[in-house]
Amino acid sequence: MSNLKKYYVGIDLGGTFIKGGIADAEGNILVNDKVPTESEKGAKGVALNIANLAKDLLKSCSLSNSDVVGIGIGVPGMIDSKKGEVVYSNNLGWEHFFVSEEVEKLTGLPVKIANDANVAAIGETKFGCGKEYENTVLITLGTGVGGGIVIDGKLFEGNCSAGAELGHSVIVAGGELCTCGRKGCLEAYASATALIRDTKRAMQADKKSKMWEVGALENVTGKTAFDYADNDLSAKSVVDNYIEKLGVGITNIANEFRPQAIILGGGVCAQGDSLVKPLQAILDKEIFAGKKGPQVKLLIANLGNSAGLLGAVALWL
Amino acid sequence: MSNLKKYYVGIDLGGTFIKGGIADAEGNILVNDKVPTESEKGAKGVALNIANLAKDLLKSCSLSNSDVVGIGIGVPGMIDSKKGEVVYSNNLGWEHFFVSEEVEKLTGLPVKIANDANVAAIGETKFGCGKEYENTVLITLGTGVGGGIVIDGKLFEGNCSAGAELGHSVIVAGGELCTCGRKGCLEAYASATALIRDTKRAMQADKKSKMWEVGALENVTGKTAFDYADNDLSAKSVVDNYIEKLGVGITNIANEFRPQAIILGGGVCAQGDSLVKPLQAILDKEIFAGKKGPQVKLLIANLGNSAGLLGAVALWL
Repeated sequence: MSNLKKYYVGIDLGGTFIKGGIADAEGNILVNDKVPTESEKGAKGVALNIANLAKDLLKSCSLSNSDVVGIGIGVPGMIDSKKGEVVYSNNLGWEHFFVSEEVEKLTGLPVKIANDANVAAIGETKFGCGKEYENTVLITLGTGVGGGIVIDGKLFEGNCSAGAELGHSVIVAGGELCTCGRKGCLEAYASATALIRDTKRAMQADKKSKMWEVGALENVTGKTAFDYADNDLSAKSVVDNYIEKLGVGITNIANEFRPQAIILGGGVCAQGDSLVKPLQAILDKEIFAGKKGPQVKLLIANLGNSAGLLGAVALWL
Repeated sequence: MSNLKKYYVGIDLGGTFIKGGIADAEGNILVNDKVPTESEKGAKGVALNIANLAKDLLKSCSLSNSDVVGIGIGVPGMIDSKKGEVVYSNNLGWEHFFVSEEVEKLTGLPVKIANDANVAAIGETKFGCGKEYENTVLITLGTGVGGGIVIDGKLFEGNCSAGAELGHSVIVAGGELCTCGRKGCLEAYASATALIRDTKRAMQADKKSKMWEVGALENVTGKTAFDYADNDLSAKSVVDNYIEKLGVGITNIANEFRPQAIILGGGVCAQGDSLVKPLQAILDKEIFAGKKGPQVKLLIANLGNSAGLLGAVALWL
């Protein structure tokens, strides 16, 4: 291979698996693989697993350190990306671990890290659905609601990278209790967890709902209400309320950041147009200054399984 | 005077007056003055008034264009600062007016413009209460609620400068009607207008309230409830609710942007500690990740009457 450094190692560090791959600056993936995280081995043990995965990936493509610009790692939790520090991570059970320094020592390669939602935001903006834009905000609708902000093609993370907690913005003062301790956060209405809670509540309140075809409450997923919304009023009401509250949060973000595009990621996005079309209508109607100001396009993340890997690579671009 | 360019003309363009001054890069004001806006003369007439004020100010200090880096102008309304365009301004009755180009032609000096709340944010950060920080958010509590965001010492304005509408973020979904057409915006709870509305409502609901000492409802100001809060339950309840809702908005902003400091400006800030102390307590308690993350300091704007002038100068720094 050429001696010109032109490859990047991307690592998606999760609680169960470490996924990794090698890509070039255009997002072409040469190889990818995954290994168990083994968080029971402690932070240094996990760092060793990351380093070994990176080395194995390079070996499998006959690349050496001299071909590689650096390693990017997406980590769940509160990350101080400037310091390369995992301030704390529930998923990994880490506090104040300088993972960048550790992996640098083990691999001899420079390392950049960022929170996983931030990584997804920069990845989708460089390589995915947002690649025609330089200013985007990503919102992930999963177990929680995460956020990532890209300004002029770079991540904006706030002081000590503690910003972009877009799920922890109250939209219903005094409303549903959020995991963060506040009441009425966007996350408490727009996460898959909230959607499942509201679906179960609707079923309990309507014993004749078609949604009971799923059998029991424990079979309810984030899909259930959407699946029955066309034929069941209780299901429709759950979906309508979900979209209304998410619409409030998205419009807030549009007014505050006025990005060119807002990107939706996470499991709930599998709903596609039945989610995006009504949300875009709310946004267009409610955005500050209406048609007089620049419009904001709503997109669905499209990197899928490669999002973590390519996002981690994008930390270097 | 030296030929080295080291002075700046700052202009604060209001609906009634154009205030202007000359300052150096340290914020020392050499001279300042004001002239009537005369918006009835149309956009070009106002631009001529701005240009003449700038020329007169320079003349009064025996400065020529060769001493001046540029002119900064703070303008109320939706401003595209890159294009130098007032997209629209209710106060001035302008739409799509390229004021920068016009004033440049008339003065022979380069011109930068920005929205007045953004100008206040950069001014307080460069010269005022926020000068030890590089990352701040300013919220003005006046007739409306405005916002300005400073990231790494530069204004962040969003696409076409249409962002930072921090007053138009819903905190009570379905709540009080806002001037922007949405329901439950921060502005509909935290503006002086909202405070006066709530004070009047409380007086109407409590005919024995001490607040009636002001005489009649039309004498109510943004001070009334604060003036009586120590001795009147209805007044206290207005103040408590005002602070609670503003606390929600401030904590949202802290979680989203995680600035080093949030600066409060506008008339309501005259309340000083009785406003800031309880708000700081809410923020410290409710901020995401509590004490584990970086803290956010709440400050009160301190440039007073010079805020507009110095902020406009700061557009060049």
